[in-house]
Amino acid sequence: MIKEAILHMPLSQYAYATTETNFTLRIRTAKGDVESVCVYYGDRVAMTEPVPVTPVQMKQCARDDLFDYYEASIQTDFTRVCYYFSLTSEGKTYYYYSRGFCEQMRANRIEYFQFPYLRREELMTEPHWVYDSVMYHIFPDSFATSKAQLSGQPQSCGQSHSHLGGTIRGITENLDYLQSLGVNLIYLNPIFAANSYHKYDTIDYFKIDPCFGSKDDFRQLVKELHRRNMRIILDGVFNHCGPDFFAFRDVIANQKQSAYRDWFYQLNFPIHYSDPPNYECFAYVKEMPKLNTSHPQVRDFICQVGTYWIREFDIDGWRLDVANEVDHETWRAFRRAVRALKPDAFLIAEIWEDADVWLRGDQFDSAMNYMFTNLCRDFFATATIDARTFDEQFQKALMRYPTPIASAQMNFLDSHDVPRFLHHCGGNCDRLRLALFFLMTAPGIPSVFYGDECLLTGDTEPQYRAAMRWNPNEQPLKETLSEWIHLRLSHPSLTRGNYRSIYTDNDGGYAFKREYVSTDGTAETALVILNNSDCTRTIRPDDSCEPVTLQAYEGTVLFLT
Amino acid sequence: MIKEAILHMPLSQYAYATTETNFTLRIRTAKGDVESVCVYYGDRVAMTEPVPVTPVQMKQCARDDLFDYYEASIQTDFTRVCYYFSLTSEGKTYYYYSRGFCEQMRANRIEYFQFPYLRREELMTEPHWVYDSVMYHIFPDSFATSKAQLSGQPQSCGQSHSHLGGTIRGITENLDYLQSLGVNLIYLNPIFAANSYHKYDTIDYFKIDPCFGSKDDFRQLVKELHRRNMRIILDGVFNHCGPDFFAFRDVIANQKQSAYRDWFYQLNFPIHYSDPPNYECFAYVKEMPKLNTSHPQVRDFICQVGTYWIREFDIDGWRLDVANEVDHETWRAFRRAVRALKPDAFLIAEIWEDADVWLRGDQFDSAMNYMFTNLCRDFFATATIDARTFDEQFQKALMRYPTPIASAQMNFLDSHDVPRFLHHCGGNCDRLRLALFFLMTAPGIPSVFYGDECLLTGDTEPQYRAAMRWNPNEQPLKETLSEWIHLRLSHPSLTRGNYRSIYTDNDGGYAFKREYVSTDGTAETALVILNNSDCTRTIRPDDSCEPVTLQAYEGTVLFLT
Repeated sequence: MIKEAILHMPLSQYAYATTETNFTLRIRTAKGDVESVCVYYGDRVAMTEPVPVTPVQMKQCARDDLFDYYEASIQTDFTRVCYYFSLTSEGKTYYYYSRGFCEQMRANRIEYFQFPYLRREELMTEPHWVYDSVMYHIFPDSFATSKAQLSGQPQSCGQSHSHLGGTIRGITENLDYLQSLGVNLIYLNPIFAANSYHKYDTIDYFKIDPCFGSKDDFRQLVKELHRRNMRIILDGVFNHCGPDFFAFRDVIANQKQSAYRDWFYQLNFPIHYSDPPNYECFAYVKEMPKLNTSHPQVRDFICQVGTYWIREFDIDGWRLDVANEVDHETWRAFRRAVRALKPDAFLIAEIWEDADVWLRGDQFDSAMNYMFTNLCRDFFATATIDARTFDEQFQKALMRYPTPIASAQMNFLDSHDVPRFLHHCGGNCDRLRLALFFLMTAPGIPSVFYGDECLLTGDTEPQYRAAMRWNPNEQPLKETLSEWIHLRLSHPSLTRGNYRSIYTDNDGGYAFKREYVSTDGTAETALVILNNSDCTRTIRPDDSCEPVTLQAYEGTVLFLT
Repeated sequence: MIKEAILHMPLSQYAYATTETNFTLRIRTAKGDVESVCVYYGDRVAMTEPVPVTPVQMKQCARDDLFDYYEASIQTDFTRVCYYFSLTSEGKTYYYYSRGFCEQMRANRIEYFQFPYLRREELMTEPHWVYDSVMYHIFPDSFATSKAQLSGQPQSCGQSHSHLGGTIRGITENLDYLQSLGVNLIYLNPIFAANSYHKYDTIDYFKIDPCFGSKDDFRQLVKELHRRNMRIILDGVFNHCGPDFFAFRDVIANQKQSAYRDWFYQLNFPIHYSDPPNYECFAYVKEMPKLNTSHPQVRDFICQVGTYWIREFDIDGWRLDVANEVDHETWRAFRRAVRALKPDAFLIAEIWEDADVWLRGDQFDSAMNYMFTNLCRDFFATATIDARTFDEQFQKALMRYPTPIASAQMNFLDSHDVPRFLHHCGGNCDRLRLALFFLMTAPGIPSVFYGDECLLTGDTEPQYRAAMRWNPNEQPLKETLSEWIHLRLSHPSLTRGNYRSIYTDNDGGYAFKREYVSTDGTAETALVILNNSDCTRTIRPDDSCEPVTLQAYEGTVLFLT
């Protein structure tokens, strides 16, 4: 056995509680190295010595390029648990506990791994509804100009500017379209008063940008969405503000004497509003001075913004910009404030890398899953990795988090911050279509960036935020996408099922199963088969189905019972 | 190269900031498998593409039974850093980044490892003074009866009981003894009003137990300690209270109608105060009902207790009982409240296992290091492990945490909760002496349990809490211990130096170096050599020193410059 490969970490994605009486344990081994894994658990405060332990056989739940992952979900009456593992490799059994490996397990419970307490405050609390969501991501300036307004023209509304003239009423007037597409969760890039067309340089967090409309427009949008059983989340930009945010203006005007000098993270007086900035910013963008989020007044201000738009307009959650550069305590305070008001509000972090330390239940429910994005790009769009590598990396990504968190990740092919997926496909929309099919059948919350269904493309910033196309003839993927969204939302195996890879080949063939057992015991298994190649191929992923013939870049799903 | 052995985790003990311009990176490899490791880091928001990177050679900092650990401490002007590694094994170089391994490094910064921001709020903030401390751990009932009081008799003071009659004045009257021993930090087991002699069943958190004395007595103790440049921490028991705590009495009296019903973690009405308890307790001890610490009133109450004894009596910190069964948010609130009042208060968690998730800077500075205790028991007392195993496990324990945290762990040979170390030694006080020598020369804050210097022994609860022996003839290790404490406190290499194992043999020979370079560039290296055997031996750990002859169970330290 390759002992160096074995990994278990208490109180992490390798050991977490989902209810007060259920916890999941995982252990990692070298790939193909171990024949069986068993975990022994007991009451860590048992009155008898040694602790009576119960063995549970662990099942392989994932395999990546180097490792196998084993998992057991355990129901227990004990609130406090201790445990150790046994691993069998080449007929030899090793015990694994907090000190490492031994051939005979010790009786000293203190040296077992510990799950100190299955505390109710520290369970995973993702809202249930998020698993039944498909998101549509709108960049407001580019989406739709209201029919009642001048259309498609750059506008200037005081300090605020627009580029393509999209408005909130434009979104409201197109909800039939979104509803027919089948999405039920809308994520809007920033809509608060700001200078630029992208609105990431906030002037006023309590005001709708005048180019986009009014608070009445926004209230109407939320009302209409909720009437249609759709939800909405907004973009919260709290790492930095814009240069015309009142506090920064005060600092520029009064310099060291400003009452708001401590609202910014690092100021070297005198402050010069020029390039390069002599104060801390988002990246080195002088228009985005960095807020000192841990200052009590700033933290309180952020929580007030977070609750205002819920209390007054009933939004359903937030996507938080540049979340990884803000202090953790601010996000904890934000979560407490928002969840006190709306217990099922959904909180998504913009974090491009592994977001583990933000996803432990105390800060965010989900993160923008750029690892998903990059893998899909490399497999479906550019074909720079084969099915096996894609599969291995995808499984590795799933194992980064507890399953309830991994299943709530915001999956997407492109966003307002990266080139359009179709650009990476070299314009081949069959590749885009197959990637969308995967998006709709994979674990994680699918998010469609507006206009992917219209084949919007582009490599650089103004291009990939191009205007939405409203002529139905220019929406070639809409029907297909709509079909797949309905397919997903009508099958619990696709929204909530686990994920077990079953097949890859060297020619782009890839298949996986997603199984879900509902509380009444009803089981459903989806078998998803993809042909990521430019040839018609017949694939038989395993004995559970007949061979399936798929056109180039075609995918299919079979439901087994 | 054994790829399966490579481990790096962003924002963990493998990547942490110590100042706003300094961070430490570590990576783990299989033992002896890699010839060199290099880290390349750059500004993650650099304006040029690809990010310009600086290579830094990493140095091996530890080795355990399976792994080598490499480390680099980096000074940087960038607040936001991205990085990747190169590892050379058998002449071949591998790059390691967030996706895994590759032979040619990609230019895409998004896929490097990320240190999103070296935020000032999230630096390690252990008080500087703790590294210059040697602790003396007193079980108050057993330590000293005041000369002005009746001596050595069990007492009953209302609801409170004592066993051996120790008092706070008894401690105050013996500060000359403690000062001559050289310790400068006192940790007292609970002193608040409680029923039992051990006082872990609190009646009143704002009152000194009447058997121990009065608030005036305690004020006098703290004053006398501070006059002597000594500090004091108290035992905070907040996981549970005692049966006569006002809130629990109210619940017993009024059951479901009690205004305090939500102050307890899990109540099944009607509550029966009997064995076994039908409510949640510490273990299954009916006298210790579990508090619902996340209830706002309870959390606030705990913070009030935490600040009261600092504000009114000027204590220097807290040791928090059963810390791993209390919710994290309570500890964060406790830290905020206490640190707001006393910015260098020291907070130690009673956590017997790996305490990583409590030691990330937001909750505790330190934990009771039972892994240290158990390893010393197995090596010095029972000799069930050899020097090599001891060394490997000790280094593994150091690598569990960032260095500033590992160096602040509370190290001890025994406590009020386990058999006396001398008991494990089978009464052989030479073994105890050598273990005490190691305690005083190892990284971590040494804590001596009262009476170890008097050869107190005992296997079970009343025994190992036996009365302190005050006759100087019954304190055979006092002089030796005092000498070593002074040695430690006068050598920064011993209080703050790093730790590099240099020698082990099969006959109990063990040597390590501790090097410290002060800010003015002065370097001091301590070379510690131990002979953990019953024979006189001559040991030459390396070429930096002449052979050293040590008696059975003798240790020595040489200072190299």
